[in-house]
Amino acid sequence: MARPAVILVSGGLDSATVLACARFMGFACHALSFDYGQRHRVELAAARRVCRQLGAASQRVVKLDMRATGGSALTADISVPKGRSERRMARGIPVTYVPARNTIFLSYALALAEVLGAQDLFIGVNAVDYSGYPDCRPPFIKAFTEVANRGTKAGVEGARFRIHTPLIKLSKSGIIQLGTALGVDFSLTHSCYDPKGRRACGRCDACLLRRRGFEKAGLPDPTRYA
Amino acid sequence: MARPAVILVSGGLDSATVLACARFMGFACHALSFDYGQRHRVELAAARRVCRQLGAASQRVVKLDMRATGGSALTADISVPKGRSERRMARGIPVTYVPARNTIFLSYALALAEVLGAQDLFIGVNAVDYSGYPDCRPPFIKAFTEVANRGTKAGVEGARFRIHTPLIKLSKSGIIQLGTALGVDFSLTHSCYDPKGRRACGRCDACLLRRRGFEKAGLPDPTRYA
Repeated sequence: MARPAVILVSGGLDSATVLACARFMGFACHALSFDYGQRHRVELAAARRVCRQLGAASQRVVKLDMRATGGSALTADISVPKGRSERRMARGIPVTYVPARNTIFLSYALALAEVLGAQDLFIGVNAVDYSGYPDCRPPFIKAFTEVANRGTKAGVEGARFRIHTPLIKLSKSGIIQLGTALGVDFSLTHSCYDPKGRRACGRCDACLLRRRGFEKAGLPDPTRYA
Repeated sequence: MARPAVILVSGGLDSATVLACARFMGFACHALSFDYGQRHRVELAAARRVCRQLGAASQRVVKLDMRATGGSALTADISVPKGRSERRMARGIPVTYVPARNTIFLSYALALAEVLGAQDLFIGVNAVDYSGYPDCRPPFIKAFTEVANRGTKAGVEGARFRIHTPLIKLSKSGIIQLGTALGVDFSLTHSCYDPKGRRACGRCDACLLRRRGFEKAGLPDPTRYA
């Protein structure tokens, strides 16, 4: 029987590619998605489509109460920046940073992994395009691995958790090429931070990176823009 | 102005004592409590009473969806053990262990700390009485501190988070003596894992440790037992 793994699946193109990687590596993939009051909640429907397409063994959606803490353009009433250059995006940490988001996401993934007897967690962090997010970098991943091994029953009983970050050093176009090679149907994914219905705005950081990624990969962009 | 700190307040006697410690240290205390589907939800009312009595600057209750992951007698349909000896409690990790619970709790505390500009987090973990909980031990706290410093905007910008664990080496009676000295009204707190209404069962691990704690401290136990 395939070993179980927990995959964080947002519905975006990065996490779809991560799910495809985990499947390619032979894991039984248990997907975990979060409804955290994000403006772009349509990504949850995308997560369901992606899990179905890529044959996830299960999918859970955990409802998170993150508006209680606030502090981000993705969850509070702060405007999502539009039309920024990549150089501008790379300067400092964007307002779309959600305090401790990946720490919270990985904590839940860890809880689920423990319940399922899984030692492998997958997360689509990327230290290249979003250089501004501290919780997308190797030192954070390393520190969280230590938390997993030290702070769980499984860990103290000998389990060694691995947090797989197959995209961490890839460019957006590299991710798109990898996902394409592994059979991801990117038309099912959603990236936009500020969608109009199911259509992408085409101007937020996520849209711009996605659009340029397809261009650089030399592949057609299946996104429907407003 | 007093520096802000985030205090995890469950409504039990440990976290009430921690809140009193943080106040004693001069922090403006922002309390964070969780409604995670625990059987003993009456502790949330206790948390409110404790925050009021000890003059917390704010209190937030975050609703957590932990039944989705399950795996504990505190959140799933597994019986809470009763009438166990302390030796028996100390053997192995109890079924009341909730997978990754303190990791999830601290993640939220970290998010709130970042939003409030706080670098100090307080948690009432104790490595003595509940030796079975891995997420109550110093190596876990140390690992999580690294996560906080590495995985947040504040951390990469130079903040140095401190996770205060004032109870970590105290016995239950030592905690009761400390809390009493710092003005905690323990009659407002709730410890029982399996209460009947607002009355404690008197037989679960939490009740037994609490009862013996008051005995050893030589102080009257204000708990109302069923």
